[in-house]
Amino acid sequence: MTSQQHADLWSGERPEAARRLLLAAVESFATRGFHATTTRDIATAAGMSPAALYIHYPSKAALLAEISRQGHAATLALVEEAAAHSADPLERMRRLVEEFTAWHARGHTVGRIVNYELRALPAEDFEVVAELRRRIEDTVKQVIEDGVAAGVFHTPETRTAARAVTSLGIDVARWYNERSSETPQQLGERYGVLVLRMLGA
Amino acid sequence: MTSQQHADLWSGERPEAARRLLLAAVESFATRGFHATTTRDIATAAGMSPAALYIHYPSKAALLAEISRQGHAATLALVEEAAAHSADPLERMRRLVEEFTAWHARGHTVGRIVNYELRALPAEDFEVVAELRRRIEDTVKQVIEDGVAAGVFHTPETRTAARAVTSLGIDVARWYNERSSETPQQLGERYGVLVLRMLGA
Repeated sequence: MTSQQHADLWSGERPEAARRLLLAAVESFATRGFHATTTRDIATAAGMSPAALYIHYPSKAALLAEISRQGHAATLALVEEAAAHSADPLERMRRLVEEFTAWHARGHTVGRIVNYELRALPAEDFEVVAELRRRIEDTVKQVIEDGVAAGVFHTPETRTAARAVTSLGIDVARWYNERSSETPQQLGERYGVLVLRMLGA
Repeated sequence: MTSQQHADLWSGERPEAARRLLLAAVESFATRGFHATTTRDIATAAGMSPAALYIHYPSKAALLAEISRQGHAATLALVEEAAAHSADPLERMRRLVEEFTAWHARGHTVGRIVNYELRALPAEDFEVVAELRRRIEDTVKQVIEDGVAAGVFHTPETRTAARAVTSLGIDVARWYNERSSETPQQLGERYGVLVLRMLGA
């Protein structure tokens, strides 16, 4: 993910300094891992003093929580939009997989943090993120069930199938990088074909 | 993974103290992440002094390298055995996915470490592990190509399909835990069915 894309992810109504801190936290967590990153590392990367950091975030865990919440909320929005864009469950699933996959390829740096540092979240923040994750998976499961009801998908365990679909997309954040031979969009299209077959379309 | 299973993974001809250190390193890396773990943490968890640790391993990176090398070598052996157990590419792929999936479910603690701390490996060790990973993926790709040649699989991009198959299994280590509703074996069987369909069987 480029700095521009990161910046777009946090283009809400927050102060410029807070956005710079979020970008710096992503870079620091990605390089050293959450546990080995200090608030001083993040402040330095953002060109600020630790005292200035504390004006915006009380701790590095608060930064991780904000990155995770925003990342998951944006993912849920993308999944819900794809799941609603057509009346045909097959087209809904194709679009969903294409976008979910491309999203994790483009945003692999943030994707790794929000997926692999989950257990470092404070309990309350973890619950918020866990609820967003359940809604993402339930949305995927609903499209599969709609497809089964409409006779276009044939798969017995819809919960396991939904897990496989989301898992395939999430794992892209682990292995994808800018040297990969497929663009995020190409990969999304190919995964779309593979998933539709997996669901018995 | 239980301590017994961990112990089995390192039941080679090494001294008992070295095995205890490997077990302690797995627990410490899994809890705190590699970067935030100190050699003192590992020695303490193994009931030893830091000086005693250095008799067996020069650094925590050397412990990570051994865990990664062993984990990947065992995975490659499992994949190669499954890929060779039958003349029928469909049965070879079914067995491969069943075992690869169940392996990552049972060994999810070690699986997370060897898959998510790769970049913390010293360059030389990284190369050894990267080569093992290439061989795992090439083995999967070869079974797919054999199936395409035999007319039992129908998939255009065999490299992307092989990546999807391994990715699905690896990601099990991220989300699986002992509270999951499926046993490792059940999950393996269900994933076997999904993957065969994905490959157009």
